[in-house]
Amino acid sequence: MSNPLLTKHELKLKEALSAIQNRGFYSAYPEVPSGKIYGETAKKDGQVAFEGYLGNEFALQQGGCSGTIGSEVSPYGVPINAQYPKANSNALLEGISRACPAWRNASVETRVGIAMEILDRLNKRSFEMAFAVMHTTGQGFMMAFQAGGPHAQDRGLEAIAYAYKAMKDCPTETTWKKQVGRDEFVTLDKTFKIVPRGIGLVIGCSTFPTWNTYPGLFASLVTGNAVIVKPHPGAILPLAITVDICQSVLIEAGFDANLVTLVADTTEHPVTAELVERPEVAIIDYTGGTAFGDWVEANAGNAVVYTEKAGVNSIIIDSVEQMKAVSGNLAFSLCLYSGQMCTTPQNIFIPRDGIETADGLMSFDDVSSAIVKGVDWMLSDQGRANEVLGAIQNEATAERIDASDGEVLREGSSIEHAMFDGARTRSVKIIKLEASQKEVFEQEMFGPLVYIIATDSTEQSIELAATVAKEHGAISCGLYSTNNEVTEKAVDAMTLAGVPVSCNLTGNIWVNQSAAFSDFHVSGVNPSGNATLSDMAFVVGRFNIVQCRTFVAEPAKVEA
Amino acid sequence: MSNPLLTKHELKLKEALSAIQNRGFYSAYPEVPSGKIYGETAKKDGQVAFEGYLGNEFALQQGGCSGTIGSEVSPYGVPINAQYPKANSNALLEGISRACPAWRNASVETRVGIAMEILDRLNKRSFEMAFAVMHTTGQGFMMAFQAGGPHAQDRGLEAIAYAYKAMKDCPTETTWKKQVGRDEFVTLDKTFKIVPRGIGLVIGCSTFPTWNTYPGLFASLVTGNAVIVKPHPGAILPLAITVDICQSVLIEAGFDANLVTLVADTTEHPVTAELVERPEVAIIDYTGGTAFGDWVEANAGNAVVYTEKAGVNSIIIDSVEQMKAVSGNLAFSLCLYSGQMCTTPQNIFIPRDGIETADGLMSFDDVSSAIVKGVDWMLSDQGRANEVLGAIQNEATAERIDASDGEVLREGSSIEHAMFDGARTRSVKIIKLEASQKEVFEQEMFGPLVYIIATDSTEQSIELAATVAKEHGAISCGLYSTNNEVTEKAVDAMTLAGVPVSCNLTGNIWVNQSAAFSDFHVSGVNPSGNATLSDMAFVVGRFNIVQCRTFVAEPAKVEA
Repeated sequence: MSNPLLTKHELKLKEALSAIQNRGFYSAYPEVPSGKIYGETAKKDGQVAFEGYLGNEFALQQGGCSGTIGSEVSPYGVPINAQYPKANSNALLEGISRACPAWRNASVETRVGIAMEILDRLNKRSFEMAFAVMHTTGQGFMMAFQAGGPHAQDRGLEAIAYAYKAMKDCPTETTWKKQVGRDEFVTLDKTFKIVPRGIGLVIGCSTFPTWNTYPGLFASLVTGNAVIVKPHPGAILPLAITVDICQSVLIEAGFDANLVTLVADTTEHPVTAELVERPEVAIIDYTGGTAFGDWVEANAGNAVVYTEKAGVNSIIIDSVEQMKAVSGNLAFSLCLYSGQMCTTPQNIFIPRDGIETADGLMSFDDVSSAIVKGVDWMLSDQGRANEVLGAIQNEATAERIDASDGEVLREGSSIEHAMFDGARTRSVKIIKLEASQKEVFEQEMFGPLVYIIATDSTEQSIELAATVAKEHGAISCGLYSTNNEVTEKAVDAMTLAGVPVSCNLTGNIWVNQSAAFSDFHVSGVNPSGNATLSDMAFVVGRFNIVQCRTFVAEPAKVEA
Repeated sequence: MSNPLLTKHELKLKEALSAIQNRGFYSAYPEVPSGKIYGETAKKDGQVAFEGYLGNEFALQQGGCSGTIGSEVSPYGVPINAQYPKANSNALLEGISRACPAWRNASVETRVGIAMEILDRLNKRSFEMAFAVMHTTGQGFMMAFQAGGPHAQDRGLEAIAYAYKAMKDCPTETTWKKQVGRDEFVTLDKTFKIVPRGIGLVIGCSTFPTWNTYPGLFASLVTGNAVIVKPHPGAILPLAITVDICQSVLIEAGFDANLVTLVADTTEHPVTAELVERPEVAIIDYTGGTAFGDWVEANAGNAVVYTEKAGVNSIIIDSVEQMKAVSGNLAFSLCLYSGQMCTTPQNIFIPRDGIETADGLMSFDDVSSAIVKGVDWMLSDQGRANEVLGAIQNEATAERIDASDGEVLREGSSIEHAMFDGARTRSVKIIKLEASQKEVFEQEMFGPLVYIIATDSTEQSIELAATVAKEHGAISCGLYSTNNEVTEKAVDAMTLAGVPVSCNLTGNIWVNQSAAFSDFHVSGVNPSGNATLSDMAFVVGRFNIVQCRTFVAEPAKVEA
């Protein structure tokens, strides 16, 4: 059952299958935005393509739409004004249901081949995607290229690999032969058929529209489901481009464009809740805030739900070799995309009596001030500051940061952007708290706000970080300790709370990073989400296997 | 990380792992109740052991109990009166939570070895279990031995094999090395730890207390969870014996007996709902009626829920070679355990214009009467009738059958039992309906009641069977057709409705049967349940994997 598209991408699939088995380093799509890799005119072409969308209608090949909708505003102040087809749910779902049978009956190889071709075309358009992601999310260009392009594509391929593996885990046919007497057997021919659940709904977020959406999109698609992509109203364009590519590849392969559809909406007239409650929707992938995520989990009816909600992430500083290497590393983690990553640290726990270093005891204030200085240095160059911080996606984030107060160690006011006058920016605000102020730091303060919290001891730091994770969710934790016993205790406590710990990161690797094929993103253990990107559990609920058994008559016995 | 118990059972584990990959015939525990296999005195010993429980206190090694409870009555009229420890939920859960850490931290090999030792001891006590199952469920002795003993043990091993495979799918450690410059690398050591969800609750049913309970029990246990076994108040003894064996093996291996506990109750004072709503319960396996199953699914909070509820199963007769072979096969399926299997056919759809046979057209009435005669013959010998029918587990079932009326083709009154005067028995009642009476036959009529339904055509038969399955659930479907096109249509329609079809069964194989390691029991597609015994989806939700990554400093460069 070979398929030309699968044959084309077979090597990559094999590598991906091997990568998910070993979970070492692997990347299928180059992360360096280089003309040598993507073509010398790729950046310019991508920019032109992006600018072509501004103020224009974005055409898609799906049915069930009339009129247009869209009200995206770039956090950099660039007017977007793209208008997307406005879907009518009933008409859309009718079109989707007509598209499903052929897709459901296509072979695993056909579906996987098509999905990998989609990823390949997405990869070729990574610069165009970078501009689209940058101007909807507020990410800096480099991050928008990597996280919005190749890293998102890697996450998509990872999910495809798990889905392929899961579907191939069961044979398509077998013979069951049971001895029921001395010379007597009963034989049944059995077949096993993959039955997709039906229609998947993928709800995107405003900060990582592709990275958080591709796993669910591709996992549902290759397991035989149709997929409705519901972008955040603030970050539609990256997913419109994605859906457009999906539809083109599907049509070229002889399938119906309605297998992957876009439902755009606006903040004023949201449609997500209506889609979640539709009985036709059998799978839901959600990334976004906790309140609405909880609502989705509770109101999804019989749909299988995979969520990534919010988390309150911690850094535990117990002891270090050199504070400078630590504060430099932390500074980048805190500044990157103005703290708008679900993995950005919020709470930094430091014993009030100070910490051990290779150069002796360092006081709490000195550690705090090293972190503040690290951030100061990171943002001291305007070009670097603009690129690292990017812009603030949502006005509410800026307002939340501005409104927060306490013992401010570093102000977080807006900074000028060298290229975009109208950019909504904030610097990183750092506030000092006491361990007793749990009711403050246990709240998720999404955006560039950092709490440095004075604790009685590292033991208390661990206890607070773990408790906050269990109660409010957490996706990342950074630990700095030169003591094996402390490390073991911290890792044990955080592991039980479902938080992956990163130990003693310095240099070019940061706690915020989550590498496809190696790092499991979100554990499913704490309130930050019930699903992991990606593992077997992320894919096996998207289809069922239904068998058929047929009696095989024994050949008539021949007398000797 | 070898383990003496795993070493002891390693061959069986390997065979089971191979069996779930191929899904051909495999059985780990002999189904023949023979003294040659189980020991010449095994049956007598089993009976003595069973009789020892009657009227006595059943001791368990778990904590958190005071007083006793139990009100089982044998459907055969034998007084049981066993009294089980009465659990106090708070005290029980405290004891369990103290037991968890050591179990959670034990190796996969240790947990799997212990679980397989439990199965081995259960197997050795299959005769004792047969008597316990027979006298709580009303099954005939042979069925109680096979379904309650070796077949249940096979289902348990199947779940263990999937869980083992799922846990071994992720490495425990890896090295991630990424090139970040011409000669520059970032290296992280990563570890991956299995974090069980916590406490599993397994809710048993009254008809197959072990067969339907072992998969969830063993899947939760080997993935590191503690398990609370909550038997149906009418069928406690088989699970009390099971829990007793679990506790003994756990203690011998140095673990806490509270890792597997029994919570018995009575119909008058049920405790299941309270347990379902406990936040400590993180996994629920449920087998039983649809109404309470729906309640469990809706009220389980954040627990992962696996259900097998009820189904309305169909036989579709389109055309046959020889009706006699078909009616003989069907008769056994209809009579076995008085129709109290979740796989027993209820609705037999036959075109009112008759069917094709090798001997020409056979009228609807002749087909109906062949089925009635088949049942008559099956029950014509009292010994055979008693053994095949067994007894009616629940008085409500008997009342339901007695109350149903219409065009009765065969009465279903009670029949004498040769060995047990007080047995609650019913013969198989057969009623003729029209296709238009969907509101009657779409209801599940659990027990020995069969509807023979006259349809306009096989096409209508298929449509009705599929619709009833989609709307009310179905676990099995038998198809008789000599026409390939009809077979394909029927299999397609039923597969989409999530019902495995058995085609043209005659001889020693019946539609009710579901063989571990080969047949997926319940598809998860229709309302008969959301889980399958057993597949990857049945095990992967019982644990999560949480990683830890540690920065590895690059060795200092040596200048040449």
